[in-house]
Amino acid sequence: MTPWDTLLEHTHSGDLERLTAFARSLGPGESARALAHMDREERRLVLRALGPEEAADLLEMLTRAQAAEVVEDLSPAYAADVLRELPTDTETDILRDLDEVDAAAVLAQLSPQEAAEVRALAGYEDDTAGGLMVVEYAAVRATATVSQVVEHLRSHADRYRDFHVQYIYVIDEEGVLTGVLRLRDLLLARPRQRARELMIPDPISVDVLTTLDGLQELFDGASYFGLPVTDAGRMVGVVRRATVEEAVGEEAHRDHLKHAGIVGGEELRSMDTLTRSRRRLQWLSINILLNMLAASVIAIYQDTLTSVIALAVFLPIISDMSGCSGNQAVAVSMRELSIGVARPQDVLHVWGKELSVGLLNGLALGILLGGVAYLWKGNPWLGLVAGGALAINTVLAVSIGGTIPLVLKHFGVDPALASGPVLTTITDLCGFLLVLALATQMLPLLV
Amino acid sequence: MTPWDTLLEHTHSGDLERLTAFARSLGPGESARALAHMDREERRLVLRALGPEEAADLLEMLTRAQAAEVVEDLSPAYAADVLRELPTDTETDILRDLDEVDAAAVLAQLSPQEAAEVRALAGYEDDTAGGLMVVEYAAVRATATVSQVVEHLRSHADRYRDFHVQYIYVIDEEGVLTGVLRLRDLLLARPRQRARELMIPDPISVDVLTTLDGLQELFDGASYFGLPVTDAGRMVGVVRRATVEEAVGEEAHRDHLKHAGIVGGEELRSMDTLTRSRRRLQWLSINILLNMLAASVIAIYQDTLTSVIALAVFLPIISDMSGCSGNQAVAVSMRELSIGVARPQDVLHVWGKELSVGLLNGLALGILLGGVAYLWKGNPWLGLVAGGALAINTVLAVSIGGTIPLVLKHFGVDPALASGPVLTTITDLCGFLLVLALATQMLPLLV
Repeated sequence: MTPWDTLLEHTHSGDLERLTAFARSLGPGESARALAHMDREERRLVLRALGPEEAADLLEMLTRAQAAEVVEDLSPAYAADVLRELPTDTETDILRDLDEVDAAAVLAQLSPQEAAEVRALAGYEDDTAGGLMVVEYAAVRATATVSQVVEHLRSHADRYRDFHVQYIYVIDEEGVLTGVLRLRDLLLARPRQRARELMIPDPISVDVLTTLDGLQELFDGASYFGLPVTDAGRMVGVVRRATVEEAVGEEAHRDHLKHAGIVGGEELRSMDTLTRSRRRLQWLSINILLNMLAASVIAIYQDTLTSVIALAVFLPIISDMSGCSGNQAVAVSMRELSIGVARPQDVLHVWGKELSVGLLNGLALGILLGGVAYLWKGNPWLGLVAGGALAINTVLAVSIGGTIPLVLKHFGVDPALASGPVLTTITDLCGFLLVLALATQMLPLLV
Repeated sequence: MTPWDTLLEHTHSGDLERLTAFARSLGPGESARALAHMDREERRLVLRALGPEEAADLLEMLTRAQAAEVVEDLSPAYAADVLRELPTDTETDILRDLDEVDAAAVLAQLSPQEAAEVRALAGYEDDTAGGLMVVEYAAVRATATVSQVVEHLRSHADRYRDFHVQYIYVIDEEGVLTGVLRLRDLLLARPRQRARELMIPDPISVDVLTTLDGLQELFDGASYFGLPVTDAGRMVGVVRRATVEEAVGEEAHRDHLKHAGIVGGEELRSMDTLTRSRRRLQWLSINILLNMLAASVIAIYQDTLTSVIALAVFLPIISDMSGCSGNQAVAVSMRELSIGVARPQDVLHVWGKELSVGLLNGLALGILLGGVAYLWKGNPWLGLVAGGALAINTVLAVSIGGTIPLVLKHFGVDPALASGPVLTTITDLCGFLLVLALATQMLPLLV
């Protein structure tokens, strides 16, 4: 029996204990898969039966896009109960992903204070420290003694248990952060010592507006579990390493999906067919226009093509292979951009590096295709045209592929989105032009 | 002045203090970029001047491939000094990436005990718990009191400082893990309590052979900072969440590079041109053969093509557009495979979902291309052939694109590697066949 069948069976039989135990036994992948296989009504039933706390645990296992999709199916009142059980960053993320009407309906179900908290968080940009932080953290005054701090932790153990407190923050009466206490130092201290003596003074903090790139740089450079977030100097939350790493991973996935033509965020097969079709078409329709533009070169040379019809075989090969060679260079540049090895101003350095690879591979592929063309028709000049065009176009494709992501980034255009179409349009156009113009020049030798 | 110029200047002037301060001020991206811009001799000089500890800090900021490349340039004795400063997992990873001669030379410089430790770790497969664990962890006996445990931590503070101890492991005299103590529980306990009373008994542990997928599932499902690793029941190390997440991220990157035709691991532009060229060519040469196979269909129909030369314009468009549509579906399936929403046995479910999107988009793109073909030549039948072929081939490409990663995975073939070439070969072949066979059937209407 599949996991979704089991979930539904326990839901229908009303055996709450077995339902809960089974839901808890599912890993993140299985949870995601089970929910993807149910229809909206079934999901509603299962999540309702599980109760808010267990339902929230299940939601935490899903990607953000899937979690939002699932919450959309719940009644606003129950959705609010479930969201309340999540850390504030996850709660805000999901609310941000709901459409406006749904989000407003859920917000209306929260207490005015809860709603204000969420609204404040939702006011920060996605993928900034403000948008990624949690507001659950432990804070004490500098004058507190170790035993007072321990007592504070003990009495709030419930609140802190879910948030894996690693640091205790020391703030003054204005809420300004003055130091950080590590659990370990607290453990090794004497009970009468004061926070002031143990804390790391002037700790690193980030402003609510710090971008994901900036956060990643900070976390990569040292091994903090979390960093305090300040707004106009006052401490307002904590951004956790795990949250930042997850956001970086999601961003990389979005980039790779975009590069493959899935634009506008994650696509899941459980989403509506019309929405999926429309989102994919947006990208395809631009591509088909660019494709027609490039292919129109062929129409110009139709007389040459009619005279040497064998050329028609090489046109798609040169177009495909230049795309392949160019995309390899795009992939290396995208990777180097993401880890910071390459920056837009390195475009000449990158071009030099790609040029040498392009020359070698252009030569190898050109000789191969030229040889096959020669053997096929017994005409060395046909081999020269096909092989020569591929060789030159490979050098071009690799040069453009390596540099275009950097150039696009420099001009503020998303390289994940635009590198592919720009590359293939130029290489198709040049490839067709090279084969057909060369062939036209050498026509008497080819027929 | 660029960061690499500044590093070199401080190195040449021998101003160690400014060199160290500047190296420390660099973030991971800047460090990677600076080292990528230096030649081998320059890197050697800078890392030598920094000293083993600072050099190790710099290496930790790089990706594994780049770190190995940098270590290769150092003398074996100095490389050993630097590696000694790294956590064992990073040290082993780098040694694994060196070529055998270099690795042996470095191992020869380590003490017999150190070398044995590294060799033992290197014996575990990459991307298993054994290959990812660190062997630095705090372990106590069940009978130890809280104050003894605290005293142990205090006296080993130096050793533990670098490893961000979150848990203390309780082991028996055979080294078998019997419980886990959390720092927080230790903090809230009385000094005379024994580890036995405070520990979480029968803790979750993983075998050295646990795969990365298994580890990811465990860490995703709960919020451990690390998990104890056992070999034949005895505790041998700790695998940290950060290490697992980094390995998962690297795996995703390798998959995306592979999908774009960068096979055999990460490529950096600082690598040798011949190596880069050869690795890219391996992939390209298989692709060009598949391409020729698909394009050979065109040769079969050259009479039809000569009669209706306009068809030559549509061949590359249909080939490119089917590739685009199919790749969108591949990207969604690869993503669903990686988050666990889709599994090989879901192939029919996925096919059904893709079929509906394929039909909608095939219709839209077919009408568009058909309309343009009709307007261009004023022949509705030409529009029908071009548009019809694209529509049918889009349905095919989307169906294959969605299911091929699952099918390949089922047969143990790496979907990141093979999905692209399999997809484009089939769609090219079918696309060319559709246009040309349809045109041959309708030839009297087209000329």
